[in-house]
Amino acid sequence: MFSKARISVAAAALVAMTGVGFAASHSQGEFAREIKARQAQMTLYAFNLGILGAMAKGEAEYDAEAAALAANNLAAAKSIWMPTAWPAGSDNASVEGTRALPAIWAADSDIGAKSQAMGEAVAALQAAAGTDLEALRGAIGPVGASCGACHKSFRAEE
Amino acid sequence: MFSKARISVAAAALVAMTGVGFAASHSQGEFAREIKARQAQMTLYAFNLGILGAMAKGEAEYDAEAAALAANNLAAAKSIWMPTAWPAGSDNASVEGTRALPAIWAADSDIGAKSQAMGEAVAALQAAAGTDLEALRGAIGPVGASCGACHKSFRAEE
Repeated sequence: MFSKARISVAAAALVAMTGVGFAASHSQGEFAREIKARQAQMTLYAFNLGILGAMAKGEAEYDAEAAALAANNLAAAKSIWMPTAWPAGSDNASVEGTRALPAIWAADSDIGAKSQAMGEAVAALQAAAGTDLEALRGAIGPVGASCGACHKSFRAEE
Repeated sequence: MFSKARISVAAAALVAMTGVGFAASHSQGEFAREIKARQAQMTLYAFNLGILGAMAKGEAEYDAEAAALAANNLAAAKSIWMPTAWPAGSDNASVEGTRALPAIWAADSDIGAKSQAMGEAVAALQAAAGTDLEALRGAIGPVGASCGACHKSFRAEE
């Protein structure tokens, strides 16, 4: 059994440890931690889609196991929902280090619907990716389209 | 139905799109993309553990729904396994921009066992986090300990 004191020490050690990661953030402006977290999620999308895209384009040999793994990773990354990483006022008109447009937070924003569309396309890709190359090719297009639709509405040009 | 030409266009668009993320990487050295992906996974651990740690320490009010969400996010992030993000030769003695020690890739490395221990601690935290504050406090210590054990063996000091 853990005593309360030991639990408290463990919790403090945990916070100190995770704080290391925050302190190492490149951006130190307002909402830097939140922006870093949501960009990390996008990085995981891009890395795993990159594996699948290379196979779909014929730049890498199709590998059913690696394709299924990358699609599972993409689905796991998509399942992460961090509302506190998207605070109002963390748009590119208000703070540095982000390309997130204020439109995300607008009253008429359809970002929820666009996110749901991505989720459905990712689920279909997850079901298809490990089957064969043609199935992967058929399912990756809608995922790319869902990425593009969201970026077009909600991400500033570089 | 998609024609092959349309599929090819979609795949090319996808790769071009994901390439934007890669090009925007801070680090442009060897294995920069791989290092960025694995650091993104760590960032998602830290962000979600930070939410739970703040509650455990009493710095934030316990919120069962938010705690369960953060623990689910942590479990989803832990489920991501990207073997191609950990290529041999991507250690801190060989390339810039990483604190990953060569010991990770040593013949006697126990990183697999340490990763499994983290997975078990995270699963227990996922089961406990939304119950109440005491359950969260009891389950977060072993997660922090698993983080610390891996960092001690396999991550260089800053």
